[in-house]
Amino acid sequence: MKIRARLCGNPQQRIGSSTNFDYKQVLVIRTDLKMSRGKIGVQAAHAAVSAAEEARRHHSSWWRRWLNEGQKKVAVKVASKEELLAIREKAAKLGLPCIVIRDRGLTEIKPGTLTALGIGPAPNADVDKVTSDLPLL
Amino acid sequence: MKIRARLCGNPQQRIGSSTNFDYKQVLVIRTDLKMSRGKIGVQAAHAAVSAAEEARRHHSSWWRRWLNEGQKKVAVKVASKEELLAIREKAAKLGLPCIVIRDRGLTEIKPGTLTALGIGPAPNADVDKVTSDLPLL
Repeated sequence: MKIRARLCGNPQQRIGSSTNFDYKQVLVIRTDLKMSRGKIGVQAAHAAVSAAEEARRHHSSWWRRWLNEGQKKVAVKVASKEELLAIREKAAKLGLPCIVIRDRGLTEIKPGTLTALGIGPAPNADVDKVTSDLPLL
Repeated sequence: MKIRARLCGNPQQRIGSSTNFDYKQVLVIRTDLKMSRGKIGVQAAHAAVSAAEEARRHHSSWWRRWLNEGQKKVAVKVASKEELLAIREKAAKLGLPCIVIRDRGLTEIKPGTLTALGIGPAPNADVDKVTSDLPLL
């Protein structure tokens, strides 16, 4: 039974344990698809997990510090696929971990639809160069 | 510039690359807090990243298979903190990776509020024992 205790041994993840964040992740969501809040939640989660995994593999110090700070995340919106891809282009040029989510479309939307973009975790100032003008979701 | 290409080298994550999923992650969100869709998206993302990290550390084969399948996620809802904690209890008893999100409350809600719960990735049948009765978010 010990292993069970271990598996849920840290039952509460205190998010934002510091008020000073040096790193953040931005989740960019398309609102023109008129997704439900549940679908939006899942797309944001896909983007977060996938971009975090990119960071863990290629920028492990950014990833570790972000987790330790309390993994700040910000959700913002765009109104089209073109806008989503333009932001990805900017993030890629700066060398930031980023990933576009292509949904299989089993629910609500057409297969292959690009729904979201995850950027970071990366240093605040770098992420801001790409996303600071985007309105909050 | 090579490293930049690598960092965004897999620009599209195809979610749900298989129609047969053996593993899933469930994101349980409190709706009684009346959070905005942006706040819900961020809480779902917190739960997803934190529970996935639990799985990566303690159930790496589940985690790897889930990622390879296309990381199926389902968002469901509960109407109270008590309901959230009761579900966590059930998941913990089954030895599933799970984590409750305690929000710092910098926006919208009071500091220390429990907002969400991430369960899995874990085998479908095990997760269903805990969450199959919960309505979709």
